[in-house]
Amino acid sequence: MLLSEIPKKVKELIDDKNIAHLATLKNNGSPHVTPVWIDRVDNTILINVSENRLKLKNMKNDKRIALSIVNHNDSYEWASIIGEVIDITNINADVHLDKLSQKYLGLSQFPWKQKGETRIIVKIAPKTVYYN
Amino acid sequence: MLLSEIPKKVKELIDDKNIAHLATLKNNGSPHVTPVWIDRVDNTILINVSENRLKLKNMKNDKRIALSIVNHNDSYEWASIIGEVIDITNINADVHLDKLSQKYLGLSQFPWKQKGETRIIVKIAPKTVYYN
Repeated sequence: MLLSEIPKKVKELIDDKNIAHLATLKNNGSPHVTPVWIDRVDNTILINVSENRLKLKNMKNDKRIALSIVNHNDSYEWASIIGEVIDITNINADVHLDKLSQKYLGLSQFPWKQKGETRIIVKIAPKTVYYN
Repeated sequence: MLLSEIPKKVKELIDDKNIAHLATLKNNGSPHVTPVWIDRVDNTILINVSENRLKLKNMKNDKRIALSIVNHNDSYEWASIIGEVIDITNINADVHLDKLSQKYLGLSQFPWKQKGETRIIVKIAPKTVYYN
């Protein structure tokens, strides 16, 4: 069952410029976790990844993911989210990356794009949220 | 194959007071990820968890884990570690918790211990390390 509403405090953690840590599953079922930028549209969480990343391959193979987010101003406020990938698309992914760049770096254009790099938006529906 | 030596830069990330994010596997194989304190003895990574935590249950059930660590002074320096639980023990776990409290909080005694709480040290051998 998907969560109908992300709790307010967790929305605030997502909306602030906090790094999230995204856990995905490798082909053999073992976990993999890396830091990611994150934002949301209502109750859908969005991340933006380069097309050739292992985490994307993992999420295409198994849509089960988890996220951990700590408040960068207070390490003891955090959320752990279990969710499911509901869409993978390249539509508007470059515009979305610039939006994340504005949020996290204060730069209107993402400064580290590689030549020929394709960006992908991964949309995630939270299933359970633990907030501490 | 276990890693013989953690790279120097990653040792520095572990030795500094950076929060790590530990991914474990639930019974059904889905990922779970939460923030943890971390330290190491040589090339073995140590975390300290309360006995009743889901992450401990997960690691008893499946020893495959992953860790993500970001430099709290520079969010764009980070490491992603894939590893394996090699020991779970309560021996010296309270002393170890106080050591972590000193590292992360500057307090010689962990301030949030619950009455009757049993602490456990989980020892992790890194298998692969990605440093960025």
